[in-house]
Amino acid sequence: MSEAPAPRSFLDRLFDRGLLIRTGVDGLYGRSGAFESVVEALDRLVSRIGGADGAEVLRFPPGMARASFERSGYLKGFPHLAGTVHSFCGNEADHARLLACLDAGEDWTAKQAATDIVLTPAACYPLYPVAAARGRLPEDGLLFDLQSYCFRHEPSLEPTRMQLFRMREYVRMGTPEQVLAFRELWLQRGTTMMSDLGLPLAIDPANDPFFGRAGKMLANNQRAQALKFELNVPVNSEDKPTACLSFNYHQDHFGTTWGIHQADGSVAHTACVGFGLERITLALLRHHGLDLDAWPAEVRAQLFG
Amino acid sequence: MSEAPAPRSFLDRLFDRGLLIRTGVDGLYGRSGAFESVVEALDRLVSRIGGADGAEVLRFPPGMARASFERSGYLKGFPHLAGTVHSFCGNEADHARLLACLDAGEDWTAKQAATDIVLTPAACYPLYPVAAARGRLPEDGLLFDLQSYCFRHEPSLEPTRMQLFRMREYVRMGTPEQVLAFRELWLQRGTTMMSDLGLPLAIDPANDPFFGRAGKMLANNQRAQALKFELNVPVNSEDKPTACLSFNYHQDHFGTTWGIHQADGSVAHTACVGFGLERITLALLRHHGLDLDAWPAEVRAQLFG
Repeated sequence: MSEAPAPRSFLDRLFDRGLLIRTGVDGLYGRSGAFESVVEALDRLVSRIGGADGAEVLRFPPGMARASFERSGYLKGFPHLAGTVHSFCGNEADHARLLACLDAGEDWTAKQAATDIVLTPAACYPLYPVAAARGRLPEDGLLFDLQSYCFRHEPSLEPTRMQLFRMREYVRMGTPEQVLAFRELWLQRGTTMMSDLGLPLAIDPANDPFFGRAGKMLANNQRAQALKFELNVPVNSEDKPTACLSFNYHQDHFGTTWGIHQADGSVAHTACVGFGLERITLALLRHHGLDLDAWPAEVRAQLFG
Repeated sequence: MSEAPAPRSFLDRLFDRGLLIRTGVDGLYGRSGAFESVVEALDRLVSRIGGADGAEVLRFPPGMARASFERSGYLKGFPHLAGTVHSFCGNEADHARLLACLDAGEDWTAKQAATDIVLTPAACYPLYPVAAARGRLPEDGLLFDLQSYCFRHEPSLEPTRMQLFRMREYVRMGTPEQVLAFRELWLQRGTTMMSDLGLPLAIDPANDPFFGRAGKMLANNQRAQALKFELNVPVNSEDKPTACLSFNYHQDHFGTTWGIHQADGSVAHTACVGFGLERITLALLRHHGLDLDAWPAEVRAQLFG
């Protein structure tokens, strides 16, 4: 009697099926056309749900200005997740040395110098300085529609924890009442959207993955003040469900950092709702199977109808 | 009599109109919803033109595996354009030092360590190792459809020379005859596409921007062998038109580098056609004006019809 083969992990089955493509780096994958068609359908679905709100569409590339990144405070909380972009700035002799290092299998990266660009850690990070530069908010505040590839340095074998992934966001700026009403609206809309997609879910208070011991206090504080909620779906496991949407009330953090002011001159409050497009796609693949054509008709109608 | 104001550059007029958004870094810009609508329309147009060919759609994120990047040979020709991704890998004491550097306005990036990820320099670079891993090509060869954000470290005030931009590509692998026929077909299709978009254009032999003196020889060789053609449109100036599409015959360069073999076991040849989505968008804005609604009806029909 031969032993049963070990069950293949969800990630392996995604590779087997060609939905994700190995690159040799954990958390960095190619996507098939089928996988992309779901990501694009989700992006359109979010646009349909939020479309009547009249958000201003802005799209930033996957990198942002290092000066803005430094000012944002991201390095205080999440130094371990950030990715800085470095380049070769030498002459021909330096180039020869670089190639010799590479040929010898030695580290050639030590001489790379930091450029003015840092990978975008969350779709809304490039937005705040742009909004601040426009001057005081109008009475109704502002609403933005964003999407970009984001980078987080956290190599993992959980397919839901990619190093490069797309985040769709709506960001609201205004009075505390305006931004909290926005967050409440999207908590409802997001829950409806996910249950219409046939996904089991729970809304839970959450905290960001702050670095170190000091970070624990920040995390506890964030939970105690109910600043962050996540909409969780079991994907990798039932025990540790995956945050597919997040709803964040920043209070006046970005308003103060960037000097964003309400119409009356007081510091603006901000909130955002973020959709993890790959994560929702993976949740759909987990719950409805790896064959998109075999997904329930009502789910397909939501996405491709 | 007061002096006439200096004429605003094309880039300034794009900022004034809100089509591009300043980030403080030359060559790194946000895009408005209107700008993005053109990029997306061009992407769809290319899909329509090439759709019947049955290319396999793959989408890679804007970063690729460093090991693959190193093997690709990119650093031989273009060390100055590459962008490596670096991260903080220290402990809490290192974090405190990093923040102290940042507060003091000193360089905090020296301790960042290279990760396993490098920014993608051209949409097709992550493809070759994936194709090689599949084994010998079928008799008909293979055809792929790619698109991704690409990075090139060349800060510039020419709006057509962005550091982060999107490249759509078709890549053909097979016999020399198969890949040259593909390139010829796309030279014709690309020319028709661009003239249907009302853009003045010229097809010119070209070379890649190889680094250094040795690079000059590579460039001369590439021209002499007619390996690269570009479809140029005046955007920034008449004198130095902008390459909006490029048509590249790699001979057996990538086949040899990656061990991609034809059905009969001989080394595969490859070719690609690349569409600079931001560059074509900028060419349209230059030639038809900054108000998309006022573009010629036949151009709008091609894009949004």
